[in-house]
This record gives sequence, structure tokens and C-alpha cells, in this order.
Amino acid sequence: MSRPTGLIANSGIELLTFGTPNGHKVSILLEELKNAYGKDYAVQSINIMQNIQKEPWFTKLSPNGRIPAIVDHDRNKFSVFEGAAILAYLTRHYDPDHKFSFDDADDLSRCEQWVAWQHGGLGPMQGQANHFFRLAKERIPYPTQRYVGESERLYGILDIQLADRDYLIGPGRGKYSIADIASFSWVNWAYFAGVDLAKFKNVERWWKRINDRPAVQKGIDVPSEGKNYNSKYVERLEKENDFKESEDKLKKLADEAKKQYDYKFSAP
Amino acid sequence: MSRPTGLIANSGIELLTFGTPNGHKVSILLEELKNAYGKDYAVQSINIMQNIQKEPWFTKLSPNGRIPAIVDHDRNKFSVFEGAAILAYLTRHYDPDHKFSFDDADDLSRCEQWVAWQHGGLGPMQGQANHFFRLAKERIPYPTQRYVGESERLYGILDIQLADRDYLIGPGRGKYSIADIASFSWVNWAYFAGVDLAKFKNVERWWKRINDRPAVQKGIDVPSEGKNYNSKYVERLEKENDFKESEDKLKKLADEAKKQYDYKFSAP
Repeated sequence: MSRPTGLIANSGIELLTFGTPNGHKVSILLEELKNAYGKDYAVQSINIMQNIQKEPWFTKLSPNGRIPAIVDHDRNKFSVFEGAAILAYLTRHYDPDHKFSFDDADDLSRCEQWVAWQHGGLGPMQGQANHFFRLAKERIPYPTQRYVGESERLYGILDIQLADRDYLIGPGRGKYSIADIASFSWVNWAYFAGVDLAKFKNVERWWKRINDRPAVQKGIDVPSEGKNYNSKYVERLEKENDFKESEDKLKKLADEAKKQYDYKFSAP
Repeated sequence: MSRPTGLIANSGIELLTFGTPNGHKVSILLEELKNAYGKDYAVQSINIMQNIQKEPWFTKLSPNGRIPAIVDHDRNKFSVFEGAAILAYLTRHYDPDHKFSFDDADDLSRCEQWVAWQHGGLGPMQGQANHFFRLAKERIPYPTQRYVGESERLYGILDIQLADRDYLIGPGRGKYSIADIASFSWVNWAYFAGVDLAKFKNVERWWKRINDRPAVQKGIDVPSEGKNYNSKYVERLEKENDFKESEDKLKKLADEAKKQYDYKFSAP
């Protein structure tokens, strides 16, 4: 694949993304919009290991130098960065029947509240858990237990919210919406961050319900097939001995870090 | 002051908050709305050191167990949590002339993008800088330079955006809006987080411009007078020898941490 140097589409939505939880939020919604309305989109893979997201043509569209970003060629090449803002933009302009969003002012606000909760809490904190649990060069006990622990607290919040509902927002047991898509995209990488999804029964049921959707299955393999989200992670754990061994080591270090700092799960 | 045990107002907006950057976002906007439209509000101090935000009456309104939250007694006691969602709610319902928000669809989205940028980036990362630079029991070099460094990168992004404008969003040199209020509330605590505001000239000018607004001066002392935001911090540094000494020690440790990990400022 050649290195992207600018936009490639002339009409519709162009998605600039990479295979991360933040990226999946947007590719899942775009797959849902395609399925529901026939809305098509083009995608470019922005390899963040090659720092393409820091190049001037990209930061003109996404000034923070991060994926995902979208460009709407049908609205004057309007560009949008930040996941929460992209979900709001796409549903405002391309979900006229409110299949994934809300018309009612109160439900619209509730949806904004839970999208913001993911955007400012679950996302950033689970991202730090990824870093200290596995990605940083050193394993440092204090921040490891801090961020894995805070991620678990946040899963606890979701678990309470989902105790008597199928989806986060909406009347009765709720309606599938961008609030679910936003948090699903991170919950779908729970194990990778050192969080045992099976401990959060309501969240796990909700995760399975959403994971079963065909558009979601497509969205989580954009721009390329993933190998670290929950279903792949569990599969690798069963099949690859080396992987299981190295994961067990990471979990042991995190458990020791929790003990060292007297961590106790609680939510809220 | 007695410990809050429930709501106290019967009409208008009731703000449940504490004197932190996230709290100030909302108290500043409420002071601006009061000044512009005569919209009044009641406030309760939720002392987060006493964990009032974890009590059941509070988490029913703010399920994440965090401040700020608002309750709108004029709209069926509708409650809103998460700063970004509160700013959106208050301007949607109580800023009919768009004095602090935008009517135009593109500017509305740009405003959402920068509010989201603060909510998912500047806020969480500067919050972690606060923790590792000063609040955690131990000073640990790696996370200290990681979060002070990431905060500086984010100030660099603001500095680029403000290079040829007075405010973040809006035609020409921009219009003061909730996007500015959101980021101002964190930039107003730059020094506390180990970030030298004076290094970011465009941000510093913008910070001064906003800090001069009477409603902002009122909002940053809700629910009680602050003592650690920039103006107070600089004053203390000049007047209190002990404070200067202990701050110099923290800065030295952060500088050493940056050297140890070969930190180099860059933005984006």
C-alpha cells in the first residue's frame, strides 16, 4: 500500500482511520448508515505507526493529529475530527429517521451525556490502561493499577446503567444508538486493556448483543482485519500458547500492582 | 456548612459542583447566561474530598459519581452530567440568541469538535498531569513526563489554532463560545499542572482575553474562592516563599523526568 498523501474521494463521506477503538466508533456507524440508508463511504488507512496523522495535509483536516477524521465531499469538503463530534455530525445529517440517534430533546441530551462519558472517561482511561498494562516499555505498578482499576470502575458504571435495559438510552429497555456504538468500541477491547469483561455480566450481554450485528462485524474490520478485539483475543488465548503465556504474565503483574496499592473495585 | 443530602431549588437550574476546572466550565457559562439573559441559578457545593458525589441521591443525577451536574427544575427536573453535554444542553435551551453558541450547522459542528477535543484530550490528560506532577503520593518519572508532556502538546495545538484568531470558532477572528469556555477552564490551571503558559503566546493572550470577562471572574470562584488557578498561583509564587520552594522542587523533578525519557516538545 502506498503512503496516503491527500484525499481520494470526490463525493460522499471519506473516512480517514486506523484499526483502533476510536476508529471503530466511526466505521461501525458508517456501516450502519450504509445498511440502513444505502449511504456509501470511502476509507483510507492512516497508519499511525508511520505518523501519517502528523502530516500537514492530515492536520489541516484533523488539527490534533489523531484518527479518526471524516471529510464530507457532499458538504463542501467539510471536515470533522474527534469521535464524539463525528458521531453527532453523521447522525444529524445522515440519520433522518433517527435509527441510531434521537429526535426527542431529552433523549438527545441523554445520548450526548453517555457519548461524552465514553469520550472523556472510558476512552481516555482505557487508553492509558492499554499503555501501562502492555504498551509502555516498562511495567510500572502504580499507573498500571490506577488505569486498569479506573477502567474497571467505568465498566461498573456501564453495568449499573444496563442492569434493566438492553441499550444505554431510550424508552423502556432502550434503543440501539451512537451512545452504544461509542462505548461498545472500547468494551470490544476490554481484554486487551487487562479488563475481564466476564466480571461485568450486564455489560457482557450488551456487548454480545451489539457484536452480533452484521454492520458492527463489518465496522470492526475497517480499515483492515483486527486481531486484538475481544473475540480475536479469546481465540488467540485458546490457540496460541506463547500468547497465553505472555498475557498471563501481564495479568499477574497487574494483579500484583493492585495488591501493592491495596486496590479494591468499586463503582461509582 | 451542612453536608448536602438532596436538591435544594424548586425552579431554574441547580448546579452541583466543586472548584475544579471541570466545575468551572459550567459555572462560567451559567454566569454568562445570567449576565446576558438574566437567567439565574442555584448552586450546591459537592465536596469531592468527602465523597458526596458517590452518594445514591447524587449518582441518580450523575451516574458516574463526578461533578459537575445540573438539574433543570423548569424542565421536569431533567438532570445532565458530563461537562460537554451540560454546555450543549444549556446553550440549546437557554441561549436563544446564540451569544455563546452557533446556529450555523458548520460552526455548530466546529464548536462540538473543539468542545470534544477538550473533553477527551486536554481535560483528561491535564488531569493526569495534575495527579503525577503533584497529587499522587509518589513522584514517578515516566508518567510525570508523559502527562505533562502530552498536556504541553495539547497547548501547542491550541496555540496553532489561535495563531490568527481571537477565539477558537466563528468567522473571521472568531466569536467567544462554549468551545473557549471549555478549554479556558483547563488552561486557567496550567501552572498547577506543571505547564508554563508563558511558552504558548497565542494561548496566553487568549487566556487573558477570556480571564478579563466579569462573568468568567465570577464563575471561577463558584462554589467558593479558588486558590490554585493561574492568577492565584502566580500571586502565591511571588508572595509565599514556602510555596515557591515546593513548586520549584516539583518543576525540577518534572524536568529531570523529561530528560530521563528524552522528552522533546512537538505539536501536533
